[in-house]
Amino acid sequence: MKIYTKTGDKGTTALIGGTRVAKSHLRIEAYGTVDELNSYIGLVRDQEVNSVRADILKEIQDRLFTIGSSLATDPDKNVKMATPDLHEADITLLEHEIDAMSEDVPPLKAFILPGGHQSVSFCHVARCVCRRAERIAIRLQEESPVEHLVIIYLNRLSDYLFALGRRMTHELQAEEITWKPRV
Amino acid sequence: MKIYTKTGDKGTTALIGGTRVAKSHLRIEAYGTVDELNSYIGLVRDQEVNSVRADILKEIQDRLFTIGSSLATDPDKNVKMATPDLHEADITLLEHEIDAMSEDVPPLKAFILPGGHQSVSFCHVARCVCRRAERIAIRLQEESPVEHLVIIYLNRLSDYLFALGRRMTHELQAEEITWKPRV
Amino acid sequence: MKIYTKTGDKGTTALIGGTRVAKSHLRIEAYGTVDELNSYIGLVRDQEVNSVRADILKEIQDRLFTIGSSLATDPDKNVKMATPDLHEADITLLEHEIDAMSEDVPPLKAFILPGGHQSVSFCHVARCVCRRAERIAIRLQEESPVEHLVIIYLNRLSDYLFALGRRMTHELQAEEITWKPRV
Ligand code: B12
Ligand code: B12
Ligand code: B12
Ligand SMILES: C[C@H]1O[C@@H](n2cnc3c(N)ncnc32)[C@H](O)[C@@H]1O
Ligand SMILES: C[C@H]1O[C@@H](n2cnc3c(N)ncnc32)[C@H](O)[C@@H]1O
Ligand SMILES: C[C@H]1O[C@@H](n2cnc3c(N)ncnc32)[C@H](O)[C@@H]1O
Ligand SMILES: [Mg+2]
Ligand SMILES: [Mg+2]
Ligand SMILES: [Mg+2]
Repeated sequence: MKIYTKTGDKGTTALIGGTRVAKSHLRIEAYGTVDELNSYIGLVRDQEVNSVRADILKEIQDRLFTIGSSLATDPDKNVKMATPDLHEADITLLEHEIDAMSEDVPPLKAFILPGGHQSVSFCHVARCVCRRAERIAIRLQEESPVEHLVIIYLNRLSDYLFALGRRMTHELQAEEITWKPRV
Repeated sequence: MKIYTKTGDKGTTALIGGTRVAKSHLRIEAYGTVDELNSYIGLVRDQEVNSVRADILKEIQDRLFTIGSSLATDPDKNVKMATPDLHEADITLLEHEIDAMSEDVPPLKAFILPGGHQSVSFCHVARCVCRRAERIAIRLQEESPVEHLVIIYLNRLSDYLFALGRRMTHELQAEEITWKPRV
Repeated sequence: MKIYTKTGDKGTTALIGGTRVAKSHLRIEAYGTVDELNSYIGLVRDQEVNSVRADILKEIQDRLFTIGSSLATDPDKNVKMATPDLHEADITLLEHEIDAMSEDVPPLKAFILPGGHQSVSFCHVARCVCRRAERIAIRLQEESPVEHLVIIYLNRLSDYLFALGRRMTHELQAEEITWKPRV
């Protein structure tokens, strides 16, 4: 089977459950942005400095597919298909990782300028794309049901990516510059 | 002539045809996102592994400028300016490339985790930005005429980028990880 | 204090001034996109070829935080907190840099295909994200006050990034390909 099925050439697509919707639908925007985030997590995983963390990053990618399935399921249909579930434990895992990564980096009292090393910058971009995905998930939630754990996961993931960026800076012995507002 | 003309400092700009519109107009969002996609195609073209494919990637960039002109033209004006056209052949070219690239990579029965090599991750990001551009083009189409070939081209281009990502993975002998849903 | 405060888990957040709003609010979209842009400026700053320009790029990052504070301040509250100001001089600085960088690169009479070197492509992506931020700032301005200098700064910054991309191409002796429309 070819990957180009041409079924979407007129601008519509099918949710899990079969309902056809326009690709401009907020639900498609939501899982499309989670897909974009997933690509950035791939990029972060590819960075040499993260080889020690490849497994956790792969787990996060797996979880983003779980989130994708959840967002792609028509909430108005009783879908019998077995899509995987997101668990509270997926969120506490992120929290434990944040705590562990923050252990020997100095505590923050200010914003930091993204950058210092290309790998760190990729991580900041991923953080911002994660926050963009979160914003769209919240917009979707205002008009249609969204699993609450999806929202919490995305919120925690951007904090994970911030902590990871600092951790990478530390391991790469790159420079961390704090923002000193010019008042 | 300086590139900063300051004419847009108040937040409006001119379409091809002369009509001034707010930069927040969906039409501007559409060609602005195609511009962002074009920058990512540039990034994909810059990857060493793609030196054998630089010509086709340049052609795609050319075609994205053609799409940009089409989207930037005021549909309510009879614009006499000679803007280039998009052809059916531009789409079949993508399809032939997809077929050729898929030849000696194993067929898929599951999603794959973006990543494995930095160049591959860039390609996945480009794929997702292409899909974002497609979504906006479809939103625009709901309120104003959009050339139908533009929509089809963007739809096929994201499949091209998926096939390219797999092809790059193969050539780079990078790892391809499929998603195994935790059910 | 942990960075994950969990206060945003229900989808709301606080502006400077204390008002709680949904994260889907256009104002959050605006400073969230400026944050994304800031991450890309970090990436551009990290490129070897830009080591001679690291200081100006850091200044731009500082200014983007200033813009972030401005956009994050509730316009309906008389906020007494001393947030930094954006000045006309911040814009003329960009203009002088554009003029200086354009001095020994050939004048343009056509569009150029993004790419030629990975660092140049990153710069084009940054340019497009800057323009995306500008579009959202203008959308916000249509419904709520936005400092006028913020809009002008973003407009000029994308021209700066275009000039910088050309300058980098020149310094890296990379290829600059102009678009020749197929008419
Ligand atoms: C949601 C969805 C997505 C989400 C991801 C899913 C997620 N969980 O987050 C996103 C937006 C990321 C996505 C992306 C893509 N998708 Co999609 N997606 C779907 C959709 C709507 C539901 C799939 C799902 O999650 N099911 C829930 C899971 C738990 O159940 P499942 O059905 O058993 O899922 C398995 C299969 O669907 C799948 N699979 C089986 N055969 C194939 C073949 C291909 C080529 C792919 C990519 C997947 C695939 O693997 C899943 C995991 O085991 C289906 C269409 C549909 N209505 O079913 C298309 C569908 C699977 N996607 C398709 C395609 C082509 C793609 C993309 C290549 C598009 C692109 N150009 O970017 C990418 C690939 C991304 C990647 N990294 O591999 C095609 C596959 C066509 C084919 N040859 O079989 C489908 C069938 C849509 C169509 N055109 O008709 N997709
Ligand atoms: C649509 C459009 C775009 C689209 C791209 C066009 C496309 N086809 O996809 C996008 C959004 C990508 C774009 C980007 C930019 N654009 Co523009 N764009 C336009 C617009 C509205 C129409 C151009 C067009 O497509 N015409 C259709 C073609 C087929 O006909 P054409 O007119 O003969 O087109 C030729 C010239 O316009 C052009 N050209 C001639 N002189 C110059 C000088 C410069 C500096 C540039 C970049 C182009 C350029 O080259 C084209 C191809 O031959 C014009 C304004 C207008 N209303 O005409 C501005 C315009 C050409 N753009 C301009 C600028 C500054 C830019 C950017 C540098 C902005 C930025 N900071 O990112 C970038 C450059 C991108 C790049 N890679 O080179 C300026 C150029 C000012 C000048 N010094 O001459 C114009 C005149 C707008 C203005 N400010 O008044 N743009
Ligand atoms: C606007 C804003 C942003 C803007 C940036 C600000 C800008 N100027 O552009 C953006 C969107 C970029 C942002 C990002 C983040 N932010 Co913020 N942000 C705010 C907000 C709403 C106002 C801050 C501000 O600009 N004040 C104006 C300045 C001039 O005055 P100020 O208060 O003296 O500002 C200083 C402190 O706020 C700050 N600071 C003090 N302690 C800490 C600790 C941490 C961890 C951080 C990041 C900053 C920070 O440094 C500022 C400069 O001196 C506050 C909440 C609030 N309502 O106050 C949260 C807040 C400061 N942010 C917070 C967080 C966690 C983050 C992120 C890590 C989120 C993420 N996962 O991406 C990132 C970090 C980005 C970075 N590069 O460092 C938390 C910090 C929690 C803590 N441990 O103290 C706060 C308190 C919100 C909350 N959760 O309650 N943020
Ligand atoms: C750090 C600050 O960032 C803002 N904030 C919280 N969540 C998001 C998001 N998804 N996108 C952009 N900004 C966000 C809030 O104002 C918070 O206080
Ligand atoms: C693979 C799946 O991705 C969804 N899909 C199709 N087009 C887009 C797009 N432009 N953006 C995001 N998702 C899309 C459809 O649901 C399709 O089945
Ligand atoms: C070069 C051309 O790009 C368009 N333009 C101006 N500002 C933006 C923006 N923020 N985003 C996208 N397109 C823009 C105008 O049409 C201008 O003429
Ligand atoms: Mg948060
Ligand atoms: Mg498609
Ligand atoms: Mg402009």
